[in-house]
Amino acid sequence: MKYCSSCGQTLIVTTPPGDTRERFVCEHCDTIHYQNPRVVTGCLVAWDDRVLLCRRDIEPRSGYWTLPAGFLENGETAEAGAVRETWEEARARVLVDDLYTLFSLPHISQIYMFYRGRLAAPEFSAGEETREVGLFSEEDIPWDELAFPVVRQTLKHYFEDRQNDHFPVRAKDIIIDRARRRW
Amino acid sequence: MKYCSSCGQTLIVTTPPGDTRERFVCEHCDTIHYQNPRVVTGCLVAWDDRVLLCRRDIEPRSGYWTLPAGFLENGETAEAGAVRETWEEARARVLVDDLYTLFSLPHISQIYMFYRGRLAAPEFSAGEETREVGLFSEEDIPWDELAFPVVRQTLKHYFEDRQNDHFPVRAKDIIIDRARRRW
Repeated sequence: MKYCSSCGQTLIVTTPPGDTRERFVCEHCDTIHYQNPRVVTGCLVAWDDRVLLCRRDIEPRSGYWTLPAGFLENGETAEAGAVRETWEEARARVLVDDLYTLFSLPHISQIYMFYRGRLAAPEFSAGEETREVGLFSEEDIPWDELAFPVVRQTLKHYFEDRQNDHFPVRAKDIIIDRARRRW
Repeated sequence: MKYCSSCGQTLIVTTPPGDTRERFVCEHCDTIHYQNPRVVTGCLVAWDDRVLLCRRDIEPRSGYWTLPAGFLENGETAEAGAVRETWEEARARVLVDDLYTLFSLPHISQIYMFYRGRLAAPEFSAGEETREVGLFSEEDIPWDELAFPVVRQTLKHYFEDRQNDHFPVRAKDIIIDRARRRW
């Protein structure tokens, strides 16, 4: 961020009066340009004893398996965003049950949330950013080819919780040392 | 948003290839400037049978009572943000138990989340954006002077759930017709 999106003048980095953090500030029009974490929302979708996974066709982690998810849009509820992303990535219609997992990923300034749901019908196909889509039983999950830690943790919790048919919401942090991260 | 924050040229509004929504796009450097919802994070803090409320000293809703909360910062977990805001607004140290409520507010493109916690000690005072801070028992809550619907709903759930000592996470939407909203 170099230029003020309001007036086009050059920005400086400074701590505004009363603030505790450095921000991008325009000295010309006095606008403070805050930068905040983004929300990723998606679904863990079941059909009988299997769950829906998408094989990514875009970076990062192209070729690896994920749950359908993407950035929440302005004017959208988190649940509506999760339903939309499931349609866009897996061309699947989901009936949402409830929020299931919520992760903070401070190293990339993201909040990730997954809703639990069921396929409205066993119909799905690869969306634009997806190579293939499939339903996987627990023993067939490609654990070594999952795209992200949030996907692995959500699936692990799900198969455990399913034994009791009780799915409490789980809020967790994913703390990754940037210097050591493998993906 | 009028100017590109990367190169300073004038932006246009258009739907990028492969996208379904209009974005601010720079035709000069090809940057797409996405705008996404922001996350507000805070705490419902108890001390014995009372809960901590802050009377706001800033707009919006200056003079009305709220739970300590504010915008999540980059590089921060949602829980750490809730603890920080409780310190900044109420000068209170909180021991967090768990996530409690999560609200989508699509009319203002916000995700609001509250953690449940306990005061580490019965010590608090008004921070810079707060007029006063107090502990309130259920019968003393100023229901008609609460700042926001998310505060009211979180408190209502809390006093109900407290009867069973069971506090499931609750994910809800607050849908407000802009034309009819009173606050």
